Amino acid sequence: MLEQLKEEVFQANLDLPKYGLVKYTWGNASAIDRESGLFVIKPSGVDYETMKASDMVVVDLDGNVVEGELRPSSDTATHAVLYKYYQEIGGIVHTHSTWATIWAQAGLDVPAMGTTHADTFYGSVPCARYLTQEEIDRGYEVETGKLIIETFEERGLDILAVPGVLLHGHGPFTWGKDVKSAVMNSVVLDEVSKMNLFTRDLNHFAKELPQNILDKHYLRKHGKYAYYGQK
Amino acid sequence: MLEQLKEEVFQANLDLPKYGLVKYTWGNASAIDRESGLFVIKPSGVDYETMKASDMVVVDLDGNVVEGELRPSSDTATHAVLYKYYQEIGGIVHTHSTWATIWAQAGLDVPAMGTTHADTFYGSVPCARYLTQEEIDRGYEVETGKLIIETFEERGLDILAVPGVLLHGHGPFTWGKDVKSAVMNSVVLDEVSKMNLFTRDLNHFAKELPQNILDKHYLRKHGKYAYYGQK
Amino acid sequence: MLEQLKEEVFQANLDLPKYGLVKYTWGNASAIDRESGLFVIKPSGVDYETMKASDMVVVDLDGNVVEGELRPSSDTATHAVLYKYYQEIGGIVHTHSTWATIWAQAGLDVPAMGTTHADTFYGSVPCARYLTQEEIDRGYEVETGKLIIETFEERGLDILAVPGVLLHGHGPFTWGKDVKSAVMNSVVLDEVSKMNLFTRDLNHFAKELPQNILDKHYLRKHGKYAYYGQK
Amino acid sequence: MLEQLKEEVFQANLDLPKYGLVKYTWGNASAIDRESGLFVIKPSGVDYETMKASDMVVVDLDGNVVEGELRPSSDTATHAVLYKYYQEIGGIVHTHSTWATIWAQAGLDVPAMGTTHADTFYGSVPCARYLTQEEIDRGYEVETGKLIIETFEERGLDILAVPGVLLHGHGPFTWGKDVKSAVMNSVVLDEVSKMNLFTRDLNHFAKELPQNILDKHYLRKHGKYAYYGQK
Repeated sequence: MLEQLKEEVFQANLDLPKYGLVKYTWGNASAIDRESGLFVIKPSGVDYETMKASDMVVVDLDGNVVEGELRPSSDTATHAVLYKYYQEIGGIVHTHSTWATIWAQAGLDVPAMGTTHADTFYGSVPCARYLTQEEIDRGYEVETGKLIIETFEERGLDILAVPGVLLHGHGPFTWGKDVKSAVMNSVVLDEVSKMNLFTRDLNHFAKELPQNILDKHYLRKHGKYAYYGQK
Repeated sequence: MLEQLKEEVFQANLDLPKYGLVKYTWGNASAIDRESGLFVIKPSGVDYETMKASDMVVVDLDGNVVEGELRPSSDTATHAVLYKYYQEIGGIVHTHSTWATIWAQAGLDVPAMGTTHADTFYGSVPCARYLTQEEIDRGYEVETGKLIIETFEERGLDILAVPGVLLHGHGPFTWGKDVKSAVMNSVVLDEVSKMNLFTRDLNHFAKELPQNILDKHYLRKHGKYAYYGQK
Repeated sequence: MLEQLKEEVFQANLDLPKYGLVKYTWGNASAIDRESGLFVIKPSGVDYETMKASDMVVVDLDGNVVEGELRPSSDTATHAVLYKYYQEIGGIVHTHSTWATIWAQAGLDVPAMGTTHADTFYGSVPCARYLTQEEIDRGYEVETGKLIIETFEERGLDILAVPGVLLHGHGPFTWGKDVKSAVMNSVVLDEVSKMNLFTRDLNHFAKELPQNILDKHYLRKHGKYAYYGQK
Repeated sequence: MLEQLKEEVFQANLDLPKYGLVKYTWGNASAIDRESGLFVIKPSGVDYETMKASDMVVVDLDGNVVEGELRPSSDTATHAVLYKYYQEIGGIVHTHSTWATIWAQAGLDVPAMGTTHADTFYGSVPCARYLTQEEIDRGYEVETGKLIIETFEERGLDILAVPGVLLHGHGPFTWGKDVKSAVMNSVVLDEVSKMNLFTRDLNHFAKELPQNILDKHYLRKHGKYAYYGQK
């Protein structure tokens, strides 16, 4: 079942090491079929060099395995919570990519300091707080999903306008309308994390991008008046 | 039409990811045929892995498409303004290459701190100011071209002696007598941006290259008395 | 003899440049056959591009060559001391990988600042002191092994829970239940060394991971209640 | 003539981009045949992708071309001066490798902060001063060679014990008993330049390697009592 989606998810997972976002099996990508309400995710801890499309696991929105002989990613429950709450998300990616993880470890939002950022993220990428002991005890992965929702609600952020988050001390999650764009958003987030760190290093007084340039670049690529790319 | 130039522009665009200057489609290269007054540029947002030479778009100096089925790069108008004003330019490249973009985000000129810089750029590479709201409203891409001209005029710079510029909060544009040298100038600008950032990190008191060494290296490779390379 | 183990050790040594941990011959990996009490190690200073599985050297726990025409790694005695003292170790890797070596040169423990670290190392990776002149005179490589043991004893560390060490001014040693996991632990140690350096650069006040998150991530992958990976 | 040496020099030049030391044609490697007193060097500004072994140029110790249809490297005179003065040198390499060039731009010696350094360089790698205007006028490349000699004489350094130098504002030269080891010394110098910069970044109080460890590591690999590598 969902053979086409398995192939897409498989390719997305292979793209993670290709773009330098993961080493070994440190990452996972998934995509959802909204009609059936099922999503496809990478199996846990399987070597990227031997993994096949048919190894992808089909899971329902409560995180139960529907098809597949391997255990799904240990982060499956986080994916499930996000798919359930945000109907507009089609794909999710989690990595420990170097530079985004550095901002996560520093416990800081990634500010919009340039148009590379503004082309994809309409403002800062938030860094969510640590989970409490109570939350960890209740279920680390489910609570991580809930914490992402809490973070976006509290800040009044549009989930597709800011398609990514950092988890304090952990690393990034990104998403998109499909898994391919979720991967691209992870690439962008890692790159702007690197650029912004060294921008501050070079000039401690460097400021965020002015709002009008942020608007211009984001809206050049997104929404009704976009004119970037092919129709 | 312009099949040879399309091939050159196609190859130049492929060189951008090859030299690590762009990820995905974040960049564009173009070249002009001065006889016909037409230039060839990459289509907007087309995947580098499937792009073909015949996908290149032919555009006139007002930025109108003359041949090609795809939309040209969203930055086409900037290229057009520069080709129109500077007869000596044969090729233009725009990227968000990591280290040059960091200087652009920091809002700083890249100073000439070594001979790697002096071999290509005869002095600092200027960082242009942000566009104003009025300029953005008038036309972001055209005004970006005009801003580059303004920057070079105000500073009295020779466009081929300093074949590159940074746009504050955005990234670099470089150019050259042909598109191949425009690509090379992007490679050099990114490399010296990296070197100079870490030079300052290592020694806060590091100074720019003395004028006589700058002269020696630039003139060893450029102008009438050059003795670098083959005749 | 030990042909299968030679193949594993050979592949592990090839993985060192593949993962960017060594240039030229700056590294060595070994694995032990506990039944015979013999271990297999890379020959000294042999080019990785021409090295064959059959070039691996078989050595006993006193560091004497049992089989092989080439001299074993100059660090063989350090491996021998560790295998002899720690029955639970199956493989050992030594590199001068860039970022772990930077912490070794700085003379600092690598603190656990994120879950990438906690997934593999249950707490800080210790930096051992310099050898004294007396120890150098007695035998540099044997004494290096003893110093690693001293460091773990003094700090009361479990050798498999913290499967790595830095030697002040030198670089990392890592180990594991087999040589494949010893290589992976070197990859992780280098990556977290890089992340942690830049985390401190970005935020001088960044703290170590809270104990409960460290516990959660380490125990999610290790020990009786682990639920990461396939059964 | 000197076909074998041309092949070695050709391979050494190809190794420069392979090890990430040069982009485009920014580097040159040469090797000398002491019997004939002639050396072989890369032609100037020839694309590494199309260069052939037969393009290598044969030059005498005064820098005159003896065989070859292409112009030799513009740095040929520097190589000639060094070969003439130091009989023990068999190969020379010049690059603008990123991290060594950063120390050159900072105008600082690269201190021996770890055993990666001590395995190859027996102490700091000196940074030579800028050439004066008089020296530039007399002949930039010849005077660069003389300045390297001056630097080593003034400091009383053994040319093979410290097989490299930085030129202020420019970049590194390295050498060795043959061109292969000269390339390796460039790789080591760039790597330790990177490590040492970030070591100081991480710990401003980090000290140079103690003399006894420096002695131990250098002498483990070099001289009469060396026991690293195969006989």
